[in-house]
Amino acid sequence: MVVLGIDIGGTSIKCGLVNEAGVLKNAMSFPVDYKLSQEEQINALILNIKSTYASNDYSSIGIGIPGSIDSKAGIVQFSNNLKWNNLHIVEMFKKEFPSKKIAISNDANVAALGELKFGAGKNEKNIVLITLGTGIGSGIIIDGKIYDGEHGRGAEFGHSLLVMDGIKCSCGRKGCLEMYASASALIRQTKEAMKENPDSLIAIKLKDKEVTAKKVFDFAELGCPVSISVVNTYVKYLSEGLLNICNIFRPSSIILCGGVANQGDKLTKRVTKYLEDNQYGFSPKAPVNVKCSQLGYNLGVIGAASLIF
Amino acid sequence: MVVLGIDIGGTSIKCGLVNEAGVLKNAMSFPVDYKLSQEEQINALILNIKSTYASNDYSSIGIGIPGSIDSKAGIVQFSNNLKWNNLHIVEMFKKEFPSKKIAISNDANVAALGELKFGAGKNEKNIVLITLGTGIGSGIIIDGKIYDGEHGRGAEFGHSLLVMDGIKCSCGRKGCLEMYASASALIRQTKEAMKENPDSLIAIKLKDKEVTAKKVFDFAELGCPVSISVVNTYVKYLSEGLLNICNIFRPSSIILCGGVANQGDKLTKRVTKYLEDNQYGFSPKAPVNVKCSQLGYNLGVIGAASLIF
Repeated sequence: MVVLGIDIGGTSIKCGLVNEAGVLKNAMSFPVDYKLSQEEQINALILNIKSTYASNDYSSIGIGIPGSIDSKAGIVQFSNNLKWNNLHIVEMFKKEFPSKKIAISNDANVAALGELKFGAGKNEKNIVLITLGTGIGSGIIIDGKIYDGEHGRGAEFGHSLLVMDGIKCSCGRKGCLEMYASASALIRQTKEAMKENPDSLIAIKLKDKEVTAKKVFDFAELGCPVSISVVNTYVKYLSEGLLNICNIFRPSSIILCGGVANQGDKLTKRVTKYLEDNQYGFSPKAPVNVKCSQLGYNLGVIGAASLIF
Repeated sequence: MVVLGIDIGGTSIKCGLVNEAGVLKNAMSFPVDYKLSQEEQINALILNIKSTYASNDYSSIGIGIPGSIDSKAGIVQFSNNLKWNNLHIVEMFKKEFPSKKIAISNDANVAALGELKFGAGKNEKNIVLITLGTGIGSGIIIDGKIYDGEHGRGAEFGHSLLVMDGIKCSCGRKGCLEMYASASALIRQTKEAMKENPDSLIAIKLKDKEVTAKKVFDFAELGCPVSISVVNTYVKYLSEGLLNICNIFRPSSIILCGGVANQGDKLTKRVTKYLEDNQYGFSPKAPVNVKCSQLGYNLGVIGAASLIF
């Protein structure tokens, strides 16, 4: 069986054909056109697919979309990134592809399912995936299946509390994990530290706009005390968020993806140490593995296709 | 079908026969005898059951126990309250009741299942139950079944973060929800406020040892400003914890039980308002109902029996 996976992001849409072994072929991507209405965007996507994959045989289509997705009803309830609202996307696809099975879910949910079926979570049943990007997304897999709560409105670990009365979040709440442990938060924390310490190595070498998650980790490795301090604080914020996942879900693994997760072992070793020292669970321990995504750049498309497998 | 439900608590063990309608009959209880070893305690319990229910016909036994319970393996891994450790309780019961089905789970888990099957969560599929007592326990029901994580070590919402670097918890972590929103926490907060405000109505009328959750709510209703302030802060702490449940699980209902939950509407109305104002979820909203336990005093025994139904 071959499935067409579609990964809809805030800037581009990626597609590809995925087989039962999780192998991606015929990948393509094109930018999101914000001049079009939401329905026009879907029609353009459908045209693009029809022309690109005209000669290919695929039985089903899986779609990952950022936002609140009611996968049972087949509706994008709300997508803050895409500015989509109450979009009956499955109905639109069904009209054009009446013989194919169509499935949708939130982008972090499909990423979690993709890692479970083909990546870092293979042979596991209960995992939580966390995306560390502009915000923090999360996908929860329980007993091999996506759990996303009533009307797809759950699985928002990024909007769990980290700091009482803390920084105001775009969701309306104060002190959300997303405001402290996303890639954007790490970049903000680094810039603040550079401003407060203009004589530090990182502040001398980098302009504000050059700051990335990778660079602050690099400067910490070079021994820059300000960068070390920023990384230490960030590791604490992220680990406290992951500790909640351990104590609430106790999955077999937590899988990190997104920009910050590219740090790989440098990040997971430190987080794992923090979790071992602090997680609930008397002897015998039931430790939770922290891993980075194995599917990397293709995770979105393979994950979307895995809704069908 | 009739099931023997057994609710093992830190001070007493309650038993009773429960039918398919959730009706409890032939209830009995006796104190936990801490002079006995853990195995002797189980043997005493078995003797007690055999004599009390000798003339009764029941097909199965369900048992709720505080602590880390590996329900699949049938083992009490660790119970802080009972000082039990690696206790193979199902094996011991099986020897004495070879023809009966035996099931065990954590006390908060069985309470959640009991409310789902016979109480405040009837006709629902995804609920979270929170016990507000000495500590905070939680039971998570997903798709009609208990979810308690790897080796039964999950579902510990009481040990999720409320205050970064906050009060040290017995679990080893700092700032756990349990340290701010349990009944014990409310009593501690009230005593602290009385000490700081010796001229307040509540400080004049109550001795320290007379403070209960109910009394601080009562004094707040009488207009005592110090009590009002304590209750307001407590409602905020509890609500922030429940907001996490909304954003992470988005269950259809959260069910409160334990001492503080006896405040009923007085508590749930205020918490519901806080959640409505702060929970994640753009339009259309997917609100989470906050309710108090319907099974009350008998929840433990009926819940334990509901492991079988």
